[in-house]
Amino acid sequence: MKSELYKKGLETLNKIHGGHAGETIINDMQSICPDYATMTIEWGFGVVMNRPQLDLKTRELIIIASCVTLGHTTAQLHAHIEAALTVGATQEEIIEVILQMAFYAGFAAATNAMYIAKNVFSNIGEKI
Amino acid sequence: MKSELYKKGLETLNKIHGGHAGETIINDMQSICPDYATMTIEWGFGVVMNRPQLDLKTRELIIIASCVTLGHTTAQLHAHIEAALTVGATQEEIIEVILQMAFYAGFAAATNAMYIAKNVFSNIGEKI
Amino acid sequence: MKSELYKKGLETLNKIHGGHAGETIINDMQSICPDYATMTIEWGFGVVMNRPQLDLKTRELIIIASCVTLGHTTAQLHAHIEAALTVGATQEEIIEVILQMAFYAGFAAATNAMYIAKNVFSNIGEKI
Amino acid sequence: MKSELYKKGLETLNKIHGGHAGETIINDMQSICPDYATMTIEWGFGVVMNRPQLDLKTRELIIIASCVTLGHTTAQLHAHIEAALTVGATQEEIIEVILQMAFYAGFAAATNAMYIAKNVFSNIGEKI
Amino acid sequence: MKSELYKKGLETLNKIHGGHAGETIINDMQSICPDYATMTIEWGFGVVMNRPQLDLKTRELIIIASCVTLGHTTAQLHAHIEAALTVGATQEEIIEVILQMAFYAGFAAATNAMYIAKNVFSNIGEKI
Amino acid sequence: MKSELYKKGLETLNKIHGGHAGETIINDMQSICPDYATMTIEWGFGVVMNRPQLDLKTRELIIIASCVTLGHTTAQLHAHIEAALTVGATQEEIIEVILQMAFYAGFAAATNAMYIAKNVFSNIGEKI
Repeated sequence: MKSELYKKGLETLNKIHGGHAGETIINDMQSICPDYATMTIEWGFGVVMNRPQLDLKTRELIIIASCVTLGHTTAQLHAHIEAALTVGATQEEIIEVILQMAFYAGFAAATNAMYIAKNVFSNIGEKI
Repeated sequence: MKSELYKKGLETLNKIHGGHAGETIINDMQSICPDYATMTIEWGFGVVMNRPQLDLKTRELIIIASCVTLGHTTAQLHAHIEAALTVGATQEEIIEVILQMAFYAGFAAATNAMYIAKNVFSNIGEKI
Repeated sequence: MKSELYKKGLETLNKIHGGHAGETIINDMQSICPDYATMTIEWGFGVVMNRPQLDLKTRELIIIASCVTLGHTTAQLHAHIEAALTVGATQEEIIEVILQMAFYAGFAAATNAMYIAKNVFSNIGEKI
Repeated sequence: MKSELYKKGLETLNKIHGGHAGETIINDMQSICPDYATMTIEWGFGVVMNRPQLDLKTRELIIIASCVTLGHTTAQLHAHIEAALTVGATQEEIIEVILQMAFYAGFAAATNAMYIAKNVFSNIGEKI
Repeated sequence: MKSELYKKGLETLNKIHGGHAGETIINDMQSICPDYATMTIEWGFGVVMNRPQLDLKTRELIIIASCVTLGHTTAQLHAHIEAALTVGATQEEIIEVILQMAFYAGFAAATNAMYIAKNVFSNIGEKI
Repeated sequence: MKSELYKKGLETLNKIHGGHAGETIINDMQSICPDYATMTIEWGFGVVMNRPQLDLKTRELIIIASCVTLGHTTAQLHAHIEAALTVGATQEEIIEVILQMAFYAGFAAATNAMYIAKNVFSNIGEKI
């Protein structure tokens, strides 16, 4: 039986990352580590993303900043640019976060992130 | 003769980082690379920090996120936690940015950043 | 009232990192983010470090490998070298983990870790 | 004429990474830097992997920890998850190393590594 | 109207990265952040790459060293290996920079860079 | 009995890093891992630094680029700035390598490196 925290986390995850993002990670981890999906859902979304000290939009912008800085987490960067749009950030604000990162993560990392953002925005445009 | 961009950058730098932060970097770089101080002031502060797409508080929060993720830029993390407070972030918001980073940069990096924040807040408390 | 998970995590933390390591982080975080100490204790030690899939010695060796690779988490590297000894790793095994890391994190990172290990071993020698 | 160290390294490399892994890197480097293949074989496998201070299984687990932490070495992570299985680690142990890394390298890096492990395990399952 | 610095930067960019590299980034950024293309062209190429303190060949070799060390900037590593050849570095020198990096960025990062170099050299060979 | 490679490596290490740098690492590693000193001396200096494909000055400049990019290897950055001067690089060239790195490793990493260079140059000035 799933905990209240799990249900709340799953709801938050689906709200931020869309449709069935929670179910996807649950299914993907099923055969190798279901506990890892539970930790991600309960701790990452049930607890941290729901804390009132920062609104979701600011959380997504700082996560984008971190992913640009790490450089190698391109799938997460893609997902969080989508998520930032979902929770109310504008394309202009997301681009500006990446531009600011050029001074901390370097222009190479920022340029790669610009192309990922362009790709996300383009996919959304096509959906409309 | 210094450009308008330089003057604007120096003013922004001093507003964000306090008193004579701009003069300090100018003096420190004087004997080794004055152009580097100029680039930092003109590009980083004259141009980027003054762009209207993000307010200064959001900029400081994403810079903190990037410095926590890099891990080794402790002097900059210290300076930008101070700067975030100066431009209107609360201690609670800054702490929350660091806490969120535990999931992207790891708990070790986040813990070290927590101690730097504690140190900045403590110094400010003593000044009052 | 503290949860069972919290009590279990605190006990594990103190067993691994010695004496009052848990109380130290609780006290240090008290004024800035008590929840962060709770997360570290409940999630990191109550849950993860207590999972039966890996013994504590192997956990400490892979954490040392990760800290050598990150490079900037020197306080954690110091603490986990001590912890590895506490849970049964030999000095020789710890040194060998660092030596192996030269090929993945580079010799500069490995050399710095060697000096931290030397320092930990030397402090322990003096205590005897 | 190849040295004894070279022969020993090549044998170890093929034992750990399977069949003709050594010949592959030798052929791949032939046109650009044969010495680099020799260094990898003699130093990495002839010397380091054969040192008695750590068994091969522990070596593979710490190398996986390092690759998860680096984040960008996905080809090596794939190869060392295969190698860990070859030298006696269970799928459960490998997954647990990755799960532990979530606290040091971040959940984004750990999640990406989980998917690589899933892919390796799935390929092996298909071979049987 | 474009500045003199912009024209100079665009010329330098096209000289180093070939044909229409400048126009490509201008077009790619057009819909998301034209200012970012301008900054890259004016600051990165108009100013920095044109400074007389280092020749272009040395600049490309240190940029390759940095990209190997970052690990995740594979597109840039590819482009700068091509650029290094364009401004006079030999294949042997480029390979040697990567080999040296094995000791600072690790053998995994260096091996991945070796394969990128092999790919660049192979593409050039086919063009002839 | 030490190999010819060891003697050659020790000589090269002392030539590049000054006086008794080799003896220092040998002594420091004596109690924890003498083999690590041997590997560093034989492989790093006996083999790699003596390869004719790049001159020592270029090697030191790319190592500086890598250390600035890593960010956390401050002791090595200090040592290699000294070494670069020893093998013929000018202060101006070293500063320019660091300045170029601002675009790949970020301005925060470059600024910290500028201060380390300033410190090295200042110590040398005092010796004269």
